[in-house]
Amino acid sequence: MPAPVRFELQATDPGSAARTGVLHTPHGAVETPAFMPVGTQATVKGVLPELLRASGSRMLLANTYHLALRPGEGVVARLGGLHRFMAWDGPILTDSGGFQAFSMSDRASLTERGVAFRSHLDGSLLDLTPERAIAIQESLGADVAMVLDHCPALPAEKSAIAEATDRTIRWARRCKEARSRADQAVFGIVQGGAHADLRRECAERLVELGFDGYAIGGVSVGESPDEVRKAMEVTSPHLPTDQSRYLMGVGRPQDVLDAIAAGVDLFDCVLPTRNGRNATCLSMRGPVRLRNAAHKADPRPIEEGCDCPACSRFSRSYLRHLFLAGEMLGPILASIHNLAFLHRLVRTAREAIGEGRYVQFRAEALEALGP
Amino acid sequence: MPAPVRFELQATDPGSAARTGVLHTPHGAVETPAFMPVGTQATVKGVLPELLRASGSRMLLANTYHLALRPGEGVVARLGGLHRFMAWDGPILTDSGGFQAFSMSDRASLTERGVAFRSHLDGSLLDLTPERAIAIQESLGADVAMVLDHCPALPAEKSAIAEATDRTIRWARRCKEARSRADQAVFGIVQGGAHADLRRECAERLVELGFDGYAIGGVSVGESPDEVRKAMEVTSPHLPTDQSRYLMGVGRPQDVLDAIAAGVDLFDCVLPTRNGRNATCLSMRGPVRLRNAAHKADPRPIEEGCDCPACSRFSRSYLRHLFLAGEMLGPILASIHNLAFLHRLVRTAREAIGEGRYVQFRAEALEALGP
Repeated sequence: MPAPVRFELQATDPGSAARTGVLHTPHGAVETPAFMPVGTQATVKGVLPELLRASGSRMLLANTYHLALRPGEGVVARLGGLHRFMAWDGPILTDSGGFQAFSMSDRASLTERGVAFRSHLDGSLLDLTPERAIAIQESLGADVAMVLDHCPALPAEKSAIAEATDRTIRWARRCKEARSRADQAVFGIVQGGAHADLRRECAERLVELGFDGYAIGGVSVGESPDEVRKAMEVTSPHLPTDQSRYLMGVGRPQDVLDAIAAGVDLFDCVLPTRNGRNATCLSMRGPVRLRNAAHKADPRPIEEGCDCPACSRFSRSYLRHLFLAGEMLGPILASIHNLAFLHRLVRTAREAIGEGRYVQFRAEALEALGP
Repeated sequence: MPAPVRFELQATDPGSAARTGVLHTPHGAVETPAFMPVGTQATVKGVLPELLRASGSRMLLANTYHLALRPGEGVVARLGGLHRFMAWDGPILTDSGGFQAFSMSDRASLTERGVAFRSHLDGSLLDLTPERAIAIQESLGADVAMVLDHCPALPAEKSAIAEATDRTIRWARRCKEARSRADQAVFGIVQGGAHADLRRECAERLVELGFDGYAIGGVSVGESPDEVRKAMEVTSPHLPTDQSRYLMGVGRPQDVLDAIAAGVDLFDCVLPTRNGRNATCLSMRGPVRLRNAAHKADPRPIEEGCDCPACSRFSRSYLRHLFLAGEMLGPILASIHNLAFLHRLVRTAREAIGEGRYVQFRAEALEALGP
């Protein structure tokens, strides 16, 4: 049976591990590197599908844990699956819930069998085994499902990280055995903390099992940017060049540029929409804080030269007014701009890689962005 | 000098005072009857301009009181006026602040000179005389400004209503004398409560003064639907047929149908967007409450046959999920549908008037809508 997704490698950068490609999915092709906005509850907060597309979004992420609890994957399936439910006809990836076992650890109890959650909504039980994580994701029907992984909290003893890594591999095998949909890819998740040997072993064993793509997990969980960089750098070389690589939970512009240099193709993060809701906008000259009094009568857009649905017609003055007045349109427009910014950043990175000048591009971009 | 707006009467209904027309403004023409969404703070809550247009909106309302306090009319003027500030290139009408003197009476003190407000934001003083109300509206730059009126709270002694009506006429004269923009219309506001003689006198004296259109004010202030109907019926005959008539603050579908029958051309109300934010949607079969458990897996749109940006692709199931999950997209989509519903209602009323069958249309619509 043909693979549900196919990664087509296009260009590689001479000065780094950066690369461009196309991820072909049942719902269309995505040029990589690509940033995936997060639609945790089957909606990217405040942004309608056509505005996502206008901002440059091509592939979205949604969350197994949240959707299983509400509205329930059965409801989504009865409504024709996640694409139809949320009216997004492009590719979707669903996270497995493994990250929530970490981020909501006070509500989760993890055993070899799986993760038992007490719902953050009503205290009911969600018994998330690897098999159930796949079954839920098959009901949701995203183009790409993720294996259930064990993401350890850092800092931790190496032995604890090794145990989580081994469990991640065992769970990955169970996920692979449980899958039944020919039109849905499953990506493995590499754990191992900042330990090169654990990352390498995990990557090799997952590749041996064979997945449709590979994610680098266990980052954005409290470690330093240097540790993230190290995790990527030690993992990427052990992943197949002809499959896509996804760095989970990373969206700070500087970190995205680093990850691209390490050969990562896909990213997701709540940062652009969460910061947008808090009136903080991304720009190539550093953050623009829209509540700042300096913007009171500023006719400029959030970022000059940006052609997003926010910048093409609204001033900082208007946006500041919306935020001070508590108007929904403020968070909506700031989120749209932040998404457009990140999509443009990875698109220009892609162009630079294609022209063999990514190292220079990255250096200039980091200089402009500031710390 | 040419009139800033011109009302072109088109058809009149044989069985009622209903009529169709076109209001020509500096920012384009509006077919009437027309419903104006309320953008109090220079934004219709949660709805981007292109979605307003897609919902059928052609002319918006914004508020002098709110915008004078925040961001200040000077800021709006520096940013190029209200149209450019909020990126709406269609016609706009600004309310004068007279209604806020009623609705925020605990913060307002009214004398012959004008209304002194204590800001609901920071307690600062807004001294809203008729002259200042016009000056602020000229800075905002809407196509239509409203005179400052005295809207009495009901029930009230007839003598108190008569006093408010007289003051409204005196203030209207001061507004007319204060106006200086040739590209901005000013509408007079007829007060007089449910008293036919006061309404008539007010209408006649305002027409004598001469305005670019006339509003029926002092409704939606606690009186019964019957009293509203009476206020309209006794006022309309005393207004020029070749100028537009605007019923302020009315948006309940049944009341809109009544008002159209009485010869009203323009309406505004927060109802569609406020109800939308509360998950209550308008439909020709009565209200649809989106939080209702019955919609849990309902694949139908809010209203079958509706082609609005919400109904054309989202199910009740999805909308219910958004509201239960506290997602912004719920209020956004419900507001869009409610606007589309009201715009469709007045558009089909317009067609019925054009075909001389408004009485039947209204009866059938009221039957379908329920009480």
